[in-house]
Amino acid sequence: MKTSLKPLVKPNAIAVVGASSDFRKVSGRPVKWLIEKGYKGKIYPVNPKAQEIGGLPAIASIDDLPDGVDLAVVVLPASGVVQAIRDLGRKGVPAAVVFASGFSEIGEEGCKLEAELREAARASGVRICGPNCLGLFNAFERVIASFSQYVNGEVPAGPIAFVSQSGAFGTAISALARSRGLGLGYFVNTGNEVDVTFVDAMRQVIEDERIRVGAGYIEGLKDGPGLCDLADRAMELGKPLVLTKVGRTGAGARAAASHTGSLAGEDIVFDGVVRQKGIIRARNEEHMLDLVEVLSCCDLPEGAGIGIATQSGGAGVLMADRIEELGLSVPRLSDATQAKIQECIPGFGATANPVDVTGQFVADPKILSESVLHMLDDPDVDVGIVWLQLMEGFADTLVSLFEDIKERATKPFIVAWVAAPDEAVKALRKRGIAVLRGAEPAVDAVVGLIRFAEARRQWSADREVRAKQQLAQVVIPSGDGPLSTVDAVRILKSAGVSIVPTEFAASAEEAVHAAESVGFPVVMKIESADILHKTEVDGIRLGLKTAEDVRSCFADLVSSVAQKRPDASIDGVVVQPMFKGDVEVVIGLQDDPVFGNVIMVGLGGVLVEVLKDVAFRKCPLTPRDASNMIDSLMGAAMFGSFRGRKGIDRDALVAMLCRVSELGAATEGVLRELDLNPVMLTSEAAAAVDVVMVRHPRQVTSVSDSKASSGLSAAALMEK
Amino acid sequence: MKTSLKPLVKPNAIAVVGASSDFRKVSGRPVKWLIEKGYKGKIYPVNPKAQEIGGLPAIASIDDLPDGVDLAVVVLPASGVVQAIRDLGRKGVPAAVVFASGFSEIGEEGCKLEAELREAARASGVRICGPNCLGLFNAFERVIASFSQYVNGEVPAGPIAFVSQSGAFGTAISALARSRGLGLGYFVNTGNEVDVTFVDAMRQVIEDERIRVGAGYIEGLKDGPGLCDLADRAMELGKPLVLTKVGRTGAGARAAASHTGSLAGEDIVFDGVVRQKGIIRARNEEHMLDLVEVLSCCDLPEGAGIGIATQSGGAGVLMADRIEELGLSVPRLSDATQAKIQECIPGFGATANPVDVTGQFVADPKILSESVLHMLDDPDVDVGIVWLQLMEGFADTLVSLFEDIKERATKPFIVAWVAAPDEAVKALRKRGIAVLRGAEPAVDAVVGLIRFAEARRQWSADREVRAKQQLAQVVIPSGDGPLSTVDAVRILKSAGVSIVPTEFAASAEEAVHAAESVGFPVVMKIESADILHKTEVDGIRLGLKTAEDVRSCFADLVSSVAQKRPDASIDGVVVQPMFKGDVEVVIGLQDDPVFGNVIMVGLGGVLVEVLKDVAFRKCPLTPRDASNMIDSLMGAAMFGSFRGRKGIDRDALVAMLCRVSELGAATEGVLRELDLNPVMLTSEAAAAVDVVMVRHPRQVTSVSDSKASSGLSAAALMEK
Repeated sequence: MKTSLKPLVKPNAIAVVGASSDFRKVSGRPVKWLIEKGYKGKIYPVNPKAQEIGGLPAIASIDDLPDGVDLAVVVLPASGVVQAIRDLGRKGVPAAVVFASGFSEIGEEGCKLEAELREAARASGVRICGPNCLGLFNAFERVIASFSQYVNGEVPAGPIAFVSQSGAFGTAISALARSRGLGLGYFVNTGNEVDVTFVDAMRQVIEDERIRVGAGYIEGLKDGPGLCDLADRAMELGKPLVLTKVGRTGAGARAAASHTGSLAGEDIVFDGVVRQKGIIRARNEEHMLDLVEVLSCCDLPEGAGIGIATQSGGAGVLMADRIEELGLSVPRLSDATQAKIQECIPGFGATANPVDVTGQFVADPKILSESVLHMLDDPDVDVGIVWLQLMEGFADTLVSLFEDIKERATKPFIVAWVAAPDEAVKALRKRGIAVLRGAEPAVDAVVGLIRFAEARRQWSADREVRAKQQLAQVVIPSGDGPLSTVDAVRILKSAGVSIVPTEFAASAEEAVHAAESVGFPVVMKIESADILHKTEVDGIRLGLKTAEDVRSCFADLVSSVAQKRPDASIDGVVVQPMFKGDVEVVIGLQDDPVFGNVIMVGLGGVLVEVLKDVAFRKCPLTPRDASNMIDSLMGAAMFGSFRGRKGIDRDALVAMLCRVSELGAATEGVLRELDLNPVMLTSEAAAAVDVVMVRHPRQVTSVSDSKASSGLSAAALMEK
Repeated sequence: MKTSLKPLVKPNAIAVVGASSDFRKVSGRPVKWLIEKGYKGKIYPVNPKAQEIGGLPAIASIDDLPDGVDLAVVVLPASGVVQAIRDLGRKGVPAAVVFASGFSEIGEEGCKLEAELREAARASGVRICGPNCLGLFNAFERVIASFSQYVNGEVPAGPIAFVSQSGAFGTAISALARSRGLGLGYFVNTGNEVDVTFVDAMRQVIEDERIRVGAGYIEGLKDGPGLCDLADRAMELGKPLVLTKVGRTGAGARAAASHTGSLAGEDIVFDGVVRQKGIIRARNEEHMLDLVEVLSCCDLPEGAGIGIATQSGGAGVLMADRIEELGLSVPRLSDATQAKIQECIPGFGATANPVDVTGQFVADPKILSESVLHMLDDPDVDVGIVWLQLMEGFADTLVSLFEDIKERATKPFIVAWVAAPDEAVKALRKRGIAVLRGAEPAVDAVVGLIRFAEARRQWSADREVRAKQQLAQVVIPSGDGPLSTVDAVRILKSAGVSIVPTEFAASAEEAVHAAESVGFPVVMKIESADILHKTEVDGIRLGLKTAEDVRSCFADLVSSVAQKRPDASIDGVVVQPMFKGDVEVVIGLQDDPVFGNVIMVGLGGVLVEVLKDVAFRKCPLTPRDASNMIDSLMGAAMFGSFRGRKGIDRDALVAMLCRVSELGAATEGVLRELDLNPVMLTSEAAAAVDVVMVRHPRQVTSVSDSKASSGLSAAALMEK
């Protein structure tokens, strides 16, 4: 159990180790800024050669520090850092920020030094932010433990906590936030994360009641489960997390690896888990700040209905386009609402939604305010966007107009104002009204707001489900590598995962018996621990209709595979009834290096292989998670009724995903992968017809926290 | 043949009809601004009640105008406009701008007035811009025929011609352009387009040699073929066209219809034609201006290699991600280049691309300039992006650094500068260096530049191909509605479109004969002009292996269909050999209301129906057009080798698309639609196996400009 990070972000007294009296230097900045920005606690510059720094008496060494120092800002070069941390530990200083570069980012030698630093931190108990970072600030308590050029300007406190793995980009984003009037209550740059990770830092600062939104910039996530816990905690607090993570593609991942020395991981897994957990992912810095601005200004809308009021029909169309692209629809306003709006606006305006109030409102501002209020009152509207352009000279009028709307409206709204007068934007933001600079960014941010509200509702509704969730009760035979089909099928059954009846047969006669037991026509598949992909050795025979078919096929199949793979030890065959689905999907488990066991679903055949239309989530799933996961597939329409065919049994698919995910959660660290490919879906059932299950290598023992259950027969599973 | 628009945009003398001496009024603005902004030609205010306006003698009526007036700015209310146009025509004034609203945008009554205005324009020969528009300006000659609030500020001349169907949004975009230092040489707002359309206006202004880029904002395109001609002309001139068109989705189209009274058309058709013609489509106003800025500053790159230099690894990753998302790859720099860069930058930087020069360049600017120059010298790099953030206090240094790079580099580059100091941005833009405000917008714009350069190369390479292109030589039987399969097959054959051998049979014996002629096994399909979709009446029998099969099937098929559709007149059956493709596609023609005959291709089965993975182009296609069209499909990977299967015969598919497109071009106005569904593709051939061909209703005679050709047998076509 690591100790609290409170001393790191809210220290009562700060030592600056290696402080310079030359305030132009990086090593001079912390003391300078702590004084200038108004830090109220004690400041102790540590420098053996100086008498005083910035009017404060210099302390000769760490050992000479008084008790009660919470945080040390270590501004020494890399070579002095490890010893300083040891000294701080001895002195009982619980936290340190380390700026120095020269660690893992410079290669082998730096990695060695970083390992030493990690060990020093562990041994001394000092929590470290860094190294190779710009540090952190807490703008509420004026804790400036940073040399970021951002601090050259104002450091306004506000409801945003921003944690960044990148220093340079983090600073740029902070500056952009400030120029929008968004106050950063906290900024933490975690750098090489020798100890305090992105997740650790965010978990700490999101708890502050003055913080309303957490914003993060990630280059390489190390602690997937920690991110999931963080997301749950943020949901509990009702605070949105907005994250930008780079490394979305192969090229990005290559660049990320060369930069931070950490793996970017499979982005598609990250993306899936983030959706599951209600984290809002921002594409880039502007998108992040748009979301942060809207989320920090607006109450959560109760539904997904966006009302658009505009002075330009074209801008309305642009926004309606974007809303549909993002998968929402633009509700048509009720006749009653339209009638009310019609009374306010000129005849050539539009009332349906988008509402085109026309440019006439310049002459009579009530045209705009009354229309917007009527629009927001419509039962199908949950949040509004008001689009304007220019209006030089009308800034004051419009600011008071929007103030009036804000006071009278019971639903949230934002302003999208193209080429807006700066003073109007500032004034509106000061009044807590979000102002975005374009139509599309406005829609993107409002849709983010809607999605967060929806995720929060779902999270609340799923609370009890999650509390009662049980892991699968399974026994995995010890050993490593692939499991036999018989074992795999037994495990699936005990986890409640539906698979077609599957009988093992070591001889032709056993095969005939098995076929009679499962029912003709049957399929026969070669069974060998050495052959994972049966199609590659032509190891499957379909449509065997009679005992004679089965008997002759057995010999043929075994001998032909033996010829193709003389190295393989062949155990026999498995026999299954023929079962054709209307739709085929692939369901799998995978031990992700960042998140642990994750579940995948994708449409079978070409859709998976050509379009990579798959979705991932962290195990286990709630039924709602499973349902959202299905809907996130591009080809989700395939599950509905189609070409006169009935839709597939969605409940069966949801149940199957949940059971597989529970199996995944129960076998964390034991199972390396599971492939159910294909899983057949019909209007009445879902059942896997092939399984590959692989343990982690060198896994010696592996009984999960459970006892075996084999009460269900294959037939019963098929009938689920 | 309509007359030139030169008097409209470059008039030697201007009358302002209805001019007010109150310069605060809309009707006062044109005279005020013509004087203030320095128009050099004669200005004639027309106002029966005034003596003088702005120091100019007022003219009592249009009839009293002197000769030689090129342009009338009509600032009268709607009710006076039609008469004014008639008067102007009589007086020989060739062009007018009409501001007044109160026409088709207000409904039925306004439509009537608009029709009168259209007739007045036609009868009088006066070319009209408007009504319901903000007018136009030509900043070179200081022709301010507009009341847009944009003109309140500076009207700097520059190399951008901007034509907008929207007044409000057009003004906002113009203001954004100005705030970026982009000079608009022309601005034209076409409004209701009673005469001068978007295409007309752009065709006129793009010819001016001072213009380098055409930018457009479209809400409802009326003249598709005109847009294609415009695009060709712009290519010839080497000037990119950047268009934003709203109405991308159903919701957008609904809003568009309520706004402009014009159909937005099928956006997917627009999008396809725009790609075919090398027009660059911008998503929104900021994307448009990013593209315009980069296109007006940069030479065209010779290839698609983007070099990235950054001071933040994360920003590099973000850009690399985006480049891959847009379908390009990030070239790894050569070892030689990397060695040279390694010498310039600190050890913890990165050299592969993205090049991370680190923040150290602040101390030594050469780190940046030399790295960027080495990067641009790399043989795989065609264009560069340099990413920076903040740098308050270093603006001057960086501006001269980039000037130096610009002078020494032989390849284009742009700067992406987050939270940049304003003065640096201004100074760079003044020096012809594009500066974008974020990583993703920079990539998007550079990719636009690359795509335009590629489109231009392709357009040039295809010049001869287009010149030699021939339309299909076909005879369409007169009459309307669907053609018989026999006729359709004959037409396809004479157009060179490959279809499997298809024989008509009116009796069982004829069917047997047909089957023997095409070769067993065969497929038999019901033939009836009343049944377009044979599967819906179960009108297809597959896999008939013997004469007996065929004989018995004939009776069965005819009677079963007759039972299902007693209303249908059944002619008999068609018999084809069984032919299974490795991949199935759908190819079609459609008479688009905006563009005329367009061709469609899509992947067969679920991919078309569920994912709507189809592409459209205008007829006819060059082979290169066809190839690009194929590659634009999401599922294009299906055409390659796949799961050990050989790839399909791409040349055959390209040829088939070209032949169908030539048929489409030859039957403009005659054929309403053609469906080849499915078309079977194998590694050796492409052939349609089913055809539906429909003429326009009430088409009486319809022989295309050609004579029939029936020299090719079905077998020969299959062998193509």
